[in-house]
Amino acid sequence: MQNVLDKYFYPKSLCIVGASSKPGSIGYELTRSVKEYGFTGELLLVNPKAEELLGYKCYPSVNDITSSIDLAIVLVPKKFVEQTITDLVNKNVKAIILVTAGFKETGKEGAEEEERILKIIKEAGARLVGPNCMGIINTQDEIKMNATFVAEKPQNGKMAFCSQSGAIGAAVLNTLRETDIRFSHFISVGNKADITENDLLEYWQKDDNISVITYYLESFEDGEKFTKYFIDGEVTKPVVVVKGGRTASGIKAASSHTGALGSSDKVVDAIMDQFGIIRADDLNDLFNIAKGFENFPMPQGNRIAVVTNAGGPSILTVDSLEKHGLTLAELTEETKSELRKFAPPQGSVNNPVDLLPGGTAEQFKRANELLAADINVDAVVSVFVEPVMVKALPVIEAINDIQSSVPIFQVVMPLPEFWEEYRRESKTKKPLFRNPENPAPVIAGMLKFKNRQTGDNRIKRNDSVSLNLNFEKYKDRFLTQEDVTVLADYYNLPVIKTTLVNVNDIGSVDIEYPAVLKAVGEEIIHKSDLKGVVLDIQNKKELLAEAEKMLESFNGMNIPVEAFMIQPYIQTKFELLVGGFRDPSFGPMVMFGTGGKYVEYYDDTVIRSAYLTGRDVDEMINGTKIGKIIRGVRGEQPVDMEGVKNAIKSVAQMMVNHKQITECDLNPLIVTGNNKLFAVDVRIKC
Amino acid sequence: MQNVLDKYFYPKSLCIVGASSKPGSIGYELTRSVKEYGFTGELLLVNPKAEELLGYKCYPSVNDITSSIDLAIVLVPKKFVEQTITDLVNKNVKAIILVTAGFKETGKEGAEEEERILKIIKEAGARLVGPNCMGIINTQDEIKMNATFVAEKPQNGKMAFCSQSGAIGAAVLNTLRETDIRFSHFISVGNKADITENDLLEYWQKDDNISVITYYLESFEDGEKFTKYFIDGEVTKPVVVVKGGRTASGIKAASSHTGALGSSDKVVDAIMDQFGIIRADDLNDLFNIAKGFENFPMPQGNRIAVVTNAGGPSILTVDSLEKHGLTLAELTEETKSELRKFAPPQGSVNNPVDLLPGGTAEQFKRANELLAADINVDAVVSVFVEPVMVKALPVIEAINDIQSSVPIFQVVMPLPEFWEEYRRESKTKKPLFRNPENPAPVIAGMLKFKNRQTGDNRIKRNDSVSLNLNFEKYKDRFLTQEDVTVLADYYNLPVIKTTLVNVNDIGSVDIEYPAVLKAVGEEIIHKSDLKGVVLDIQNKKELLAEAEKMLESFNGMNIPVEAFMIQPYIQTKFELLVGGFRDPSFGPMVMFGTGGKYVEYYDDTVIRSAYLTGRDVDEMINGTKIGKIIRGVRGEQPVDMEGVKNAIKSVAQMMVNHKQITECDLNPLIVTGNNKLFAVDVRIKC
Repeated sequence: MQNVLDKYFYPKSLCIVGASSKPGSIGYELTRSVKEYGFTGELLLVNPKAEELLGYKCYPSVNDITSSIDLAIVLVPKKFVEQTITDLVNKNVKAIILVTAGFKETGKEGAEEEERILKIIKEAGARLVGPNCMGIINTQDEIKMNATFVAEKPQNGKMAFCSQSGAIGAAVLNTLRETDIRFSHFISVGNKADITENDLLEYWQKDDNISVITYYLESFEDGEKFTKYFIDGEVTKPVVVVKGGRTASGIKAASSHTGALGSSDKVVDAIMDQFGIIRADDLNDLFNIAKGFENFPMPQGNRIAVVTNAGGPSILTVDSLEKHGLTLAELTEETKSELRKFAPPQGSVNNPVDLLPGGTAEQFKRANELLAADINVDAVVSVFVEPVMVKALPVIEAINDIQSSVPIFQVVMPLPEFWEEYRRESKTKKPLFRNPENPAPVIAGMLKFKNRQTGDNRIKRNDSVSLNLNFEKYKDRFLTQEDVTVLADYYNLPVIKTTLVNVNDIGSVDIEYPAVLKAVGEEIIHKSDLKGVVLDIQNKKELLAEAEKMLESFNGMNIPVEAFMIQPYIQTKFELLVGGFRDPSFGPMVMFGTGGKYVEYYDDTVIRSAYLTGRDVDEMINGTKIGKIIRGVRGEQPVDMEGVKNAIKSVAQMMVNHKQITECDLNPLIVTGNNKLFAVDVRIKC
Repeated sequence: MQNVLDKYFYPKSLCIVGASSKPGSIGYELTRSVKEYGFTGELLLVNPKAEELLGYKCYPSVNDITSSIDLAIVLVPKKFVEQTITDLVNKNVKAIILVTAGFKETGKEGAEEEERILKIIKEAGARLVGPNCMGIINTQDEIKMNATFVAEKPQNGKMAFCSQSGAIGAAVLNTLRETDIRFSHFISVGNKADITENDLLEYWQKDDNISVITYYLESFEDGEKFTKYFIDGEVTKPVVVVKGGRTASGIKAASSHTGALGSSDKVVDAIMDQFGIIRADDLNDLFNIAKGFENFPMPQGNRIAVVTNAGGPSILTVDSLEKHGLTLAELTEETKSELRKFAPPQGSVNNPVDLLPGGTAEQFKRANELLAADINVDAVVSVFVEPVMVKALPVIEAINDIQSSVPIFQVVMPLPEFWEEYRRESKTKKPLFRNPENPAPVIAGMLKFKNRQTGDNRIKRNDSVSLNLNFEKYKDRFLTQEDVTVLADYYNLPVIKTTLVNVNDIGSVDIEYPAVLKAVGEEIIHKSDLKGVVLDIQNKKELLAEAEKMLESFNGMNIPVEAFMIQPYIQTKFELLVGGFRDPSFGPMVMFGTGGKYVEYYDDTVIRSAYLTGRDVDEMINGTKIGKIIRGVRGEQPVDMEGVKNAIKSVAQMMVNHKQITECDLNPLIVTGNNKLFAVDVRIKC
């Protein structure tokens, strides 16, 4: 076997340690699930208090088992966990799932116990899923394993689902019969002490039973590694994620739930967007999007046709399409003229096409065929509200029969009886959508995957950079102006000409006027707020007077001034921000947007992972208001856009190269009246 | 009877004109619905081709009926409609519903036919619902009328629902057994030729069977009248709206659907927000919010406690709470210490409280009681994922039993069997929510209603304004500078001192320097774009030179310059926008935000109906980024905020007083370096 995850998902033998004979207990219900779903491998139960359970022999302990164990699921009380794990690795078991809770998620003591167990596992070359999880499922006929305590019988599909939360997993399994979600693999990863979303991403890429990968996550264990798979082009299957902990309160709740450190939601959004990972708003959208990938051909563009027997719901569909960046297709005259042949005269042959409540199965089929064949149409949404005079099933099935390379998504709003009837009688059982707003996020998600960047043109780490700069001395501190200059020179940052003088030497400087005078000192961060900046100084006399005044003022505040910085005074047209920071999970990030002293209030910035492409840079600029303005609007000349792009790329390269740098800010990066760029204040922190 | 709508909702006799004996037809199914639901009044059927239908005698025509008719529903083919309506009004029927379609929604010809019918109705002093609608329901025991063609048996509640779309109405009725939506009145209003949402708003306010009013709308027939009920304090019941046609494409689709002219979605949002009308995102939220008002006590604030047996779903709850402006309550030490007495040690007694999967009915009940009793808690959300060891029903029912003035909203994620069991066995049948994200919009909606403004302190029309100004000559044109000055003086707009001179008289002007020179002309709208503005002119010589250059340039473009405008040159610190416009439905509106030449790109404006209160003005300012900045941030002095507020109020008063004014712009309203306000360009259009 190549990958230990094969032992998890395709075990020939499964050992449940902690199988219980008490109905309602997890140990009993999990055993019952495995049996009832018809596990094809050997089932081995460990229970010291019983001889037999549900027809299977019970072993008093792991040590009593003679056959080999591919996968062990441990449900024993916490106090027995360490011994059980030891027994299992001694028996050379390589794949262990620890369902038992009470570890890292409960605080420091639990975290230490989790560490101890992990050490045992690692030393033995075994792997661990959990603790604090709820099991694993493989619906493939050759395995048929439902090793969770929800005794449903999931149907087979080509989706894989990994849930960080056991309860979300359980809630999804609880509703399978209503939602018609079908999957190949399910796994609950709990505290992710060892095996994480990253291992599964890599594994599912290579498993032919999987065509779409879905996650419910509350944290990214090692976001930089997660994105690395995308950067390296190793991910070729769509990945759809619901990320709990979007808001400050949610992140706090998630962190106390699994002890995970959260990235800000803006970072998560940026990462998803950049790497073509689809972020679903909720679980309903998650599985709808997954169904889209699994069951429908890929739309080739964003021009959508809508056909309906019901004006109101189609308006809700149209609203949701536009909200998701999709447009209503302009139908060809040929399509309209063909539609006119059978559409009711009081309906509409324009998009959205309205067949009125009397629209029949034959008419719906023909209209969908025509729309799917229109060269201006990339996807069709058919919205059917069941009226009294036309039964839903024949309409739905007629449309399901259409063979087309353009996807047709059906929304059905029928009487409740319809759903059972469809499950029973449909030939294709293609997924249907219940609400007019459902198809839009599915189509948008599929297009996002289709349009993702797969080329090998991202910024990469350059290991051969040699700088005369000692980062070590800067732990948690800002770099000196001299060292900032070293970096700015190396990375070609567009920094303004700067003269640094000792406070006592100001009389002897030889500079150009008009000039700007600034106070420099380790405690002087927000210079403007402290009145440490004087603009538009006309001559030497003014310079000396202002310098004296400034020193007095800082003396009064008891803040030491270490030096003066003098720069040419330039006329500001726009103030930009280019910056970088290091996310605790996703690593180096860059930022672009409106700069200046009101930067937090304007909140007009876009962030991206520093592993950038040129397209990413363009999207950053176009994603901000200021970015659109500086491209030249209302007849104005554009600013030096190459300069702006180079500044972003330079900061990105610097953040990627130097892991020591935690923050970097060019704010403001000034655009002058004649559209030149000058960074007048560069701050870099380690 | 006081109100003709009584005849619609509480008829003693109902006449179906176009009752049909063909199963599957609307005429048959509607008759069957009325019979099967058990209408308590007299049912009169008109069908010239049948003697009897479903046990009722059929009359050949309306004229053959001798008893009096309270309500008539007309389903006849379109060509018979006019005669039928004539017959009905001749028989003195005052309440008519016209289900038949093919009128205004199909174009000009249909609109004319609709006009003719309306004329007949109006001349007879009767009223009309429809055309192009799907009927009416009253679930009260004394009436029991389901006069729609969806033969469901709706359960009684205290909600009223008005749908502009028949299909949305049908889709909702189709799902009643799954969604447990209960209402008192339902009406489908179709093309709204006569009776509109406004009539129903007024009527339902006074009907004691109604406690919450809901709408699906695609347009507001007379938005100014709709808001008038709120302005006048006549609306005391919550109003919840789903508005289809949010986006440009959606508005276009809605307009071709019912021929209605749409307001922009930003206007609709502003109006809802301002008058405490709750705008739901979709139908699911609409009915959830309505259930909230009907079944739960009003939360007194936004501090929410969450209790759960399931970490993941509670994180999704917390995310949605914060997204809707709600906060996690800080529990008192007393509550936590009481919780500690029974909560599992590995769970959490902090908010969100986690009882772990083993949490029992007794524990859930006690925890909910404690949270509801905490003085820091305004509402409780209890999230229960059904695990194997604890059945859902006893937990849910134990919590339903709690008597509390603080609302407790329950989310349940059970096995499918639960729902039937709950419908069958629950004592209270209180509404439950299916997704962790559901309660947040409900609580936020209830709070919005609670915090609405009800006082009589809004801007009102002042009919006694007398101005030396003839608006009539300005149809679709901008006012001259002289007339702008008349209005600016009367309304105390903070306009900069302005000198207007003939192009030939510029040599003789006596002004202060530095100055700004601007070209004035009817075709000169965007002055900057046309280079019709020169700043910072230092002396007369410069002035004359720039004036000459400007004339040459406009001559070259063939744009006539009618005069020059000269103003003092001021140093700009911020550029604001204060403006007004007239919405086709909602009437006078005002706008505040970031001004200047990039106004569309910054898109930082808030709009409101001009019927403003002081709180509205504060909310407008705080709703923009620039509004927060000018209040003084980072140690800066605030600008003249009274001046800003007065400018907004003045423009609002002007828009309310003068119906002729369609647009008014103070852009930019400049904030100078010393925080004074100057409008340098005021444009007013009729």
